[in-house]
Amino acid sequence: MRPIDALVNALSDARVLTDPDVIDSYARDRTFLEPGKPLAVVLATSRDDVVTTMRWATEHRVPVVPRGGGTGLAGASVAGDGSVILSLARMTAIRELSPADEIAVVEPGVITADLDKAAREHGLMYAPDPSSYEISTIGGNLATNAGGLRCVKYGVTRDSALGLEVVLADGRVLNTGRRTMKGVTGYDLTGLFVGSEGTLGVITAATVRLRRAPAAPPATFAADFSSLRDAGAAVSAIMAAGCQPSLMELLDRATLQAIDEWRNIGLEPGTQAMLIGQSDAADSQAAVERMERICTENGASFVAVSSSPQEADELIGLRRLAYGAKERQGACLVEDVCVPRSALAEMIGRIEAAAERHGVRIATVAHAGDGNLHPVFIFEHGTVEPPPEVWAAADEVFKDALELGGTLTGEHGVGLLKRRWLELESGPVAGELQRGIKAVFDPLGLLNPGKAI
Amino acid sequence: MRPIDALVNALSDARVLTDPDVIDSYARDRTFLEPGKPLAVVLATSRDDVVTTMRWATEHRVPVVPRGGGTGLAGASVAGDGSVILSLARMTAIRELSPADEIAVVEPGVITADLDKAAREHGLMYAPDPSSYEISTIGGNLATNAGGLRCVKYGVTRDSALGLEVVLADGRVLNTGRRTMKGVTGYDLTGLFVGSEGTLGVITAATVRLRRAPAAPPATFAADFSSLRDAGAAVSAIMAAGCQPSLMELLDRATLQAIDEWRNIGLEPGTQAMLIGQSDAADSQAAVERMERICTENGASFVAVSSSPQEADELIGLRRLAYGAKERQGACLVEDVCVPRSALAEMIGRIEAAAERHGVRIATVAHAGDGNLHPVFIFEHGTVEPPPEVWAAADEVFKDALELGGTLTGEHGVGLLKRRWLELESGPVAGELQRGIKAVFDPLGLLNPGKAI
Ligand SMILES: Cc1cc2nc3c(=O)[nH]c(=O)nc-3n(C[C@H](O)[C@H](O)[C@H](O)COP(=O)(O)OP(=O)(O)OC[C@H]3O[C@@H](n4cnc5c(N)ncnc54)[C@H](O)[C@@H]3O)c2cc1C
Ligand SMILES: Cc1cc2nc3c(=O)[nH]c(=O)nc-3n(C[C@H](O)[C@H](O)[C@H](O)COP(=O)(O)OP(=O)(O)OC[C@H]3O[C@@H](n4cnc5c(N)ncnc54)[C@H](O)[C@@H]3O)c2cc1C
Repeated sequence: MRPIDALVNALSDARVLTDPDVIDSYARDRTFLEPGKPLAVVLATSRDDVVTTMRWATEHRVPVVPRGGGTGLAGASVAGDGSVILSLARMTAIRELSPADEIAVVEPGVITADLDKAAREHGLMYAPDPSSYEISTIGGNLATNAGGLRCVKYGVTRDSALGLEVVLADGRVLNTGRRTMKGVTGYDLTGLFVGSEGTLGVITAATVRLRRAPAAPPATFAADFSSLRDAGAAVSAIMAAGCQPSLMELLDRATLQAIDEWRNIGLEPGTQAMLIGQSDAADSQAAVERMERICTENGASFVAVSSSPQEADELIGLRRLAYGAKERQGACLVEDVCVPRSALAEMIGRIEAAAERHGVRIATVAHAGDGNLHPVFIFEHGTVEPPPEVWAAADEVFKDALELGGTLTGEHGVGLLKRRWLELESGPVAGELQRGIKAVFDPLGLLNPGKAI
Repeated sequence: MRPIDALVNALSDARVLTDPDVIDSYARDRTFLEPGKPLAVVLATSRDDVVTTMRWATEHRVPVVPRGGGTGLAGASVAGDGSVILSLARMTAIRELSPADEIAVVEPGVITADLDKAAREHGLMYAPDPSSYEISTIGGNLATNAGGLRCVKYGVTRDSALGLEVVLADGRVLNTGRRTMKGVTGYDLTGLFVGSEGTLGVITAATVRLRRAPAAPPATFAADFSSLRDAGAAVSAIMAAGCQPSLMELLDRATLQAIDEWRNIGLEPGTQAMLIGQSDAADSQAAVERMERICTENGASFVAVSSSPQEADELIGLRRLAYGAKERQGACLVEDVCVPRSALAEMIGRIEAAAERHGVRIATVAHAGDGNLHPVFIFEHGTVEPPPEVWAAADEVFKDALELGGTLTGEHGVGLLKRRWLELESGPVAGELQRGIKAVFDPLGLLNPGKAI
């Protein structure tokens, strides 16, 4: 009997997919990276399925690639030769939602937006909202420590994760963390799994924190700038003034153009950047008016303020189109540098310079309030690898970010794409410790090998 | 040459204390636990001193107990026979404070309140404020993941820690984390050190997040209850109503009495509990009035609301006296259970029942908004160990907390005191992994042996 048949037997036919074309569609994420030839896809429906799969994998020494929505932008769920893809996408139960304790216990396949929706029914929200929140899963968000639009005010996924149920490489089940708002029993294993990109264990349930949804409707502004650097300076000034926006997104001209070509938004010729900001505070209107004034002082050519939730949704919807609009124009290398907020304008300038110097197309969107920039390098559709000039420009952008006190990746993770720059940032000692930790959790190196560290 | 002389030579005479009485005063924390006989105290003034000490310790296989303010309540900095106490209390520089990026880079010996004060000069604050904030250090706060009064709104120390400089057991220097608001390069080593009670490395600097200090003065209320359970129910109702207090403290009658005997606060005979709450939101007055109404609905006999910062300071000062007041009455075993917020009243009831059943004195204060209770078991001054009935009652309280979905320790840590209950909460698999992690960072087991895990 082939090992895979033993797995099929142990699980039940229906949940193991072995058709090569089907496998291939599960072996990719949203990067350009080409997968290998995995053996099969397991569609887990329960923790027991995960335990069975991991025991089998340990017995047969088969690499396992956990997978949620497959929306990753770092290659972290791209599957290699001979591996098994373990999809958690069918584990979609919200096991519990407690308005009194402001927590939910969810399975990993729950779509991010669905949890938020369920929470809203109780006047609560699930704060982390990556732009992909309608297609990404809670498990994937945890495994990448996803950010999002609201994280400028409410923090990243880590800040909403209280406890996890995890299946280890050998099939043992571990519970980390708690249901309470705080606690310090032993080392922070929850934090270790968050952002570990499926390399330490498979998350099969999570206890997450919910927050009160703001009572009043948010107020929103959009500001056009004739210079990208001015827009960056406006963001720094808004944050330094303590306006506490609940969202602060920046789109450069190339991004706006891509959206305009797709959806015709009436882009003005002189507009080089647009800033979209929101406040959901009790005094949201006043807060947004302050932000408007700061934009004007920093050279905005046009600022519109609105307290209509519908207009706000339209504006933010625009932002959520950014990535799709670029994908229409070419293959994309999506980068994710993050710099201290005061360095935002400088970093934007350096990205522009790198684009020019290497003759590459870069369109940038940013969770600007966090200093988190996504310069998207656009190259020809159908090209398997980004051309050398793209890598050269990306290399410069990474080094610039580090020089400005920043990081390679604010929220997308290391995956495969950023591994070669990793030690530039964290140094050899951290690398050694991380490999040591990996060996404690997964001594045979079966979980998502070659990723993250 | 004795090993300790080699250390003295390597460092410089002045910074190594070897007088037994002096050593003894550095070998204790704020628990009743008796220390062993350490070899010496090193008063480090720089990272290099720490490197030198750890290299020496590795060479001579000497256990090292890092120490900040020595205000711990779990025995985590109680030093054993033959160890060296490494005090970081003299490393007090605030290396950088950037209002634009809302971060500070500080040495570990900085007193918590001093950092807050320095931040206030720029309209910022350092949020974590354990009741001990005038005597505890940032390094100790990080190593215990300290909570505090404001953490009901602003989170615990972990939520303000962005990056660390750490000296490992063998003297190597590691930098973790970043200066940016978010980032996901590799496993979360920062989170691993936070709360690790000096067992994984010595923190020699930290990059911490500052927050905007609220613009308007806070509004404060104090409410008297004739039943402790009613007070607990009021807290749950306030939190569930989304009032978002910036502070929500509960004091039971025994605590109030201890304070009254010390400072004469005019305690009413029927008062069984007092709740102190604060809002620092833009609409603080309205928020506090809502909380006042909820207290009244839940049976408060008296509620006073004030928007005077001075009155607020007085009220909160009262709260900060609680521990000192109890120490006057006897030796104290300070516990630190934390339960889901909805279980607060139930947990209070169980503490009262345990006290009665075992005939022990328990006085409880709570960071009630977090569900974090400090039942203080008071026994006779001069007793070295708590008497058996105290342990029996404590054992019940721990098990009750776990049964209600809670944790053994919300913020004080495991130290020595809670080790025997640890696996009840986290289970054997977590224990094994934690020992594995410890071995990666400190293979010789020299850093604060016997603590935390
Ligand atoms: C249009 C678009 C917009 C985006 N916007 C954002 C954004 O604003 N912010 C942001 O942070 N990201 C963003 N992303 C990236 C991506 O959506 C996130 O990284 C997301 O968290 C991935 O979730 P997923 O469920 O798709 O995970 P996958 O892509 O399936 O997997 C990602 C990683 O998590 C691991 N994993 C998945 N599930 C589990 C599990 N249950 N247990 C253990 N490991 C697991 C995988 O092995 C892999 O390493 C965007 C992507 C797209 C396509
Ligand atoms: C009156 C009073 C009130 C208190 N209130 C609170 C409260 O509200 N919330 C709360 O959380 N705690 C509270 N505590 C407990 C205590 O103050 C905290 O645990 C505090 O964080 C300890 O800080 P410290 O500097 O005194 O550390 P220490 O007691 O010196 O050490 C504590 C632990 O940290 C380690 N450590 C210290 N410095 C370093 C370093 N630089 N690197 C590595 N490890 C290090 C030690 O080895 C030890 O394990 C209170 C204590 C008292 C006496």
